[in-house]
Amino acid sequence: MRLSQFHLATVKEVPADAEVASHRLMLRAGMLRKLAAGIYTWTPLGLRVLRKVETVVREEMNRAGAIEMLMPSIQPRELWEETQRWEKFGGQLLKLKDRREQEYCYGPTHEEVITDFARQELKSYKQLPINFYQIQTKFRDEIRPRFGVMRAREFMMKDAYSFHLTPESLAATYGVMYGAYGRIFDRLGLRFRAVQADTGAIGGNASHEFQVLAESGEDAIAWSDGSDYAANVELAEALAPRVERPEPAAELQRVDTPARKTMDEVSTFLSVSPDQCVKTILVRGEQGLVALCVRGDHEINEVKAAKLEELPGASVLADEAEILKATGTRPGFIGPVGLPDEIPVIVDRSAAALADFVCGGNAVDTHYTGANWNRDARITRIADLRKVVDGDPSPDGEGTLHIARGIEVGHVFQLGGRYAEAMNATVLDENGKARAMLMGCYGIGVSRIVAAAIEQNHDDRGIVWPEPMAPWTVAICVIGSRNGTQAQDAAQALYDELTGHGLEVLLDDRGLRPGPMFADMELIGIPHRIVVSERGLEAGTFEYRHRRDTENRALTRAELMERLLGA
Amino acid sequence: MRLSQFHLATVKEVPADAEVASHRLMLRAGMLRKLAAGIYTWTPLGLRVLRKVETVVREEMNRAGAIEMLMPSIQPRELWEETQRWEKFGGQLLKLKDRREQEYCYGPTHEEVITDFARQELKSYKQLPINFYQIQTKFRDEIRPRFGVMRAREFMMKDAYSFHLTPESLAATYGVMYGAYGRIFDRLGLRFRAVQADTGAIGGNASHEFQVLAESGEDAIAWSDGSDYAANVELAEALAPRVERPEPAAELQRVDTPARKTMDEVSTFLSVSPDQCVKTILVRGEQGLVALCVRGDHEINEVKAAKLEELPGASVLADEAEILKATGTRPGFIGPVGLPDEIPVIVDRSAAALADFVCGGNAVDTHYTGANWNRDARITRIADLRKVVDGDPSPDGEGTLHIARGIEVGHVFQLGGRYAEAMNATVLDENGKARAMLMGCYGIGVSRIVAAAIEQNHDDRGIVWPEPMAPWTVAICVIGSRNGTQAQDAAQALYDELTGHGLEVLLDDRGLRPGPMFADMELIGIPHRIVVSERGLEAGTFEYRHRRDTENRALTRAELMERLLGA
Repeated sequence: MRLSQFHLATVKEVPADAEVASHRLMLRAGMLRKLAAGIYTWTPLGLRVLRKVETVVREEMNRAGAIEMLMPSIQPRELWEETQRWEKFGGQLLKLKDRREQEYCYGPTHEEVITDFARQELKSYKQLPINFYQIQTKFRDEIRPRFGVMRAREFMMKDAYSFHLTPESLAATYGVMYGAYGRIFDRLGLRFRAVQADTGAIGGNASHEFQVLAESGEDAIAWSDGSDYAANVELAEALAPRVERPEPAAELQRVDTPARKTMDEVSTFLSVSPDQCVKTILVRGEQGLVALCVRGDHEINEVKAAKLEELPGASVLADEAEILKATGTRPGFIGPVGLPDEIPVIVDRSAAALADFVCGGNAVDTHYTGANWNRDARITRIADLRKVVDGDPSPDGEGTLHIARGIEVGHVFQLGGRYAEAMNATVLDENGKARAMLMGCYGIGVSRIVAAAIEQNHDDRGIVWPEPMAPWTVAICVIGSRNGTQAQDAAQALYDELTGHGLEVLLDDRGLRPGPMFADMELIGIPHRIVVSERGLEAGTFEYRHRRDTENRALTRAELMERLLGA
Repeated sequence: MRLSQFHLATVKEVPADAEVASHRLMLRAGMLRKLAAGIYTWTPLGLRVLRKVETVVREEMNRAGAIEMLMPSIQPRELWEETQRWEKFGGQLLKLKDRREQEYCYGPTHEEVITDFARQELKSYKQLPINFYQIQTKFRDEIRPRFGVMRAREFMMKDAYSFHLTPESLAATYGVMYGAYGRIFDRLGLRFRAVQADTGAIGGNASHEFQVLAESGEDAIAWSDGSDYAANVELAEALAPRVERPEPAAELQRVDTPARKTMDEVSTFLSVSPDQCVKTILVRGEQGLVALCVRGDHEINEVKAAKLEELPGASVLADEAEILKATGTRPGFIGPVGLPDEIPVIVDRSAAALADFVCGGNAVDTHYTGANWNRDARITRIADLRKVVDGDPSPDGEGTLHIARGIEVGHVFQLGGRYAEAMNATVLDENGKARAMLMGCYGIGVSRIVAAAIEQNHDDRGIVWPEPMAPWTVAICVIGSRNGTQAQDAAQALYDELTGHGLEVLLDDRGLRPGPMFADMELIGIPHRIVVSERGLEAGTFEYRHRRDTENRALTRAELMERLLGA
């Protein structure tokens, strides 16, 4: 592509609401234009990158035996009533009415439509398993759209849905999709982790998120340095300490801790390490108050707490009045010693291994030292209650956990029978009996991948594309393109040769001065840059620089070809 | 593709509301599933065809120098207010509100969005001309969606918009797009005509529709057998007869024509050919009544009538009361003889060439014979007022006109300054002065092409795809695939060889009986069918049949290869 025949419009200033690097860089590189909140136009430059992602996703989905189709964006309310999601989906569902006052939504996902399709198209177990996918535009009416295409309202998604007669078949296709996702992100040149994810209220126990690693990521991931283990921090199991709980050695003592409420304040005041303290919170569940105890250096994991049998349904932190009534004190001074018998005390594995610990005194401005379980404080049950931290042992017994941040770009999920049962999507089994199908669903945020790749790959000069996602692989910059023709001719010959070898080459023939020209090429992140100048031609060399390099190299034509085309 | 790995679901019965062949066949072949009125899911089979069209459109747009981008489907009301189309566009505009009560529409077209993009991205005449396009989903809330994807509400369109400083530049790009459209429809294997189209209220004089010829088409096209001339029937000029008007020879006579009101009734009753009669209608315009006269065998062309200077603005047929008051008679008996002086009499060129003609008597149940212009009836002005008919001379002087029916699948239009002026989209010209840009727009109904191709290419057994649009080029049907393996092996070997040569081959390995298998392959319209059977293998031949053939041919492997791969 000759740049004079393309439309490149890099931008100096970006709006203040562009908070993250990828959003700023996509605007500065001229990949995006905002049309409305969370709604973006993909410029020619942006679309080139988006299509690279789309192509890799499509190729790998086809290779994995999934079959492409295309569902509409506008979906009738009736289908969403069948699954009761018309109301339950919440405010993200963009509802609308047509000229006949019929109600529709702009599809945020397609479980209802594909299940409706499947119950019409699939009649027999012989048609199973089958896996349909589409690459299509979706809309979620985010309450706070932000970060450009990272959390846009209108976005491009690959969504796949598989149908099965048995859990074994579902698990097999789930495995195939898991593998395909790995290949997709590998081929795109991204560093990622497949992490175990919380299956939430939907049920089923198999769900993985594919997270592109980036410091700016919204999600925390625990991963092992000794195995493939990776999980969302909310889900990673915190093992019990390998050491037994010591026998009590100290006396229980009530001490004054005036106005020391936080763990930092208390441990400093008492000169005791936070990992020798127990912090306690009171939660009000549907069956009353529950006390949760973790070590002072740990955090309660709300996802784990929500799964406790003592806390069925919804629960919230107890308010000050409740705390006062139940314990006689205020937040900051609650402790397990002397709590009323009707309050279950659930203790994290690490906290349960402590002896002679510090905890709240259940009276304002007091704590206990030398507290011990059983002797001084009840344990109703020991449970895994805390978030894992860097240095914890990996739950699979292999290696040590570390915490990384990630951006979710894919999600695979064993849905099970939920949608097919609600919508009566059945096939006849081997015995001629109608049975509801089982389903898996598999999503990839195609447009989000573009932003995630930039979060992972950029520097202060701009984007540093992984080669498979770059809009062009090579940029040829001509110096002196306005006057002399020797450099122009040489650049054109080089362009012809490289494109002849199948490389995607951008020839910058705009006639800019070197500074702005190089800045543009670095901003838009082209991996290989070649400068063609009269001076270089006289010396028989081209100036070459990889986007990740810091220095130019003078390469002969043969060296350049070897560099770009390989051996 | 092995058919057992795909999803094919042909259907026997189709709903009664599938009125046209393409709709019925797309449903029967299992290319579409209706989700709601005018909203369809493209099945895997349907999508394969849609993508073929999309690919050809994209390749030719790129070849013509247009630059692909991608605009959102959801557009803010504010932009549509700038062009006053928020109200003017009418009921087809699907309006909606987000959770913050902001108003949007689902884009039925993108002039507003692209002009907003252009006014931000284009600053200088040096960036012009430029031509942006996208292939994207649109929504038009049709009052009566019908004919499947022919007139769907949600549909796929290629829309391009070019920007220019001068009319000459606009005309040049228009010419390039005209050429690209011709190549697109040629490559798709469709018979089509590029016809001059009415530019309507938008103004500008260059607009062409690309019409796929099909008897079921909604549009009538006049085309010349002696030149490239083709035009929408509404727009085709009816030339004046080459013969001079004869001198009057007969006397004007009032004759009784009791209850004979229609042209057929009158000409039969008086034993005179309709081409010797003049029929007259009265139209009420903003400046009063106007009489329009055409020959008895011709029809008034309303588009031409609406452009008469005597009928500025809106006009309607006069009602019975008005006719009675102005002429003393009823519809069916109006004529130009003795009309009140204040009514202009506009006479079509062919009617004006008559002498001694029959016309209404301006009294109930009477007509005149032997009427003559000037001697008996005023002519205010002679004009081109009628629809052309088969056999008329071509307006370009080359050949004779014929009437064909067509389906509009593309439209190119020189918009001029309309949108850029309304939205203040300017660039600086050579003198540093801000000037509004000129625009062209160029649309192709990508999904409609699929239906149009079927309307043009089908028989009573199903679809007959032009090869470039076929989901697969070759179908290999295995007979006896359940038991013996020799036929299976031979089919697989043939499949491998043909796909190795780059052909798209469907291997029907479903194990159906020959009848249903062949019926499916004919219904879905695969161009080349090869049957592999034990019996054929013993004779050293394959059974071959082109979709347009009526007989099978036994071909040796070499003959088959020559047939499919060419010399």
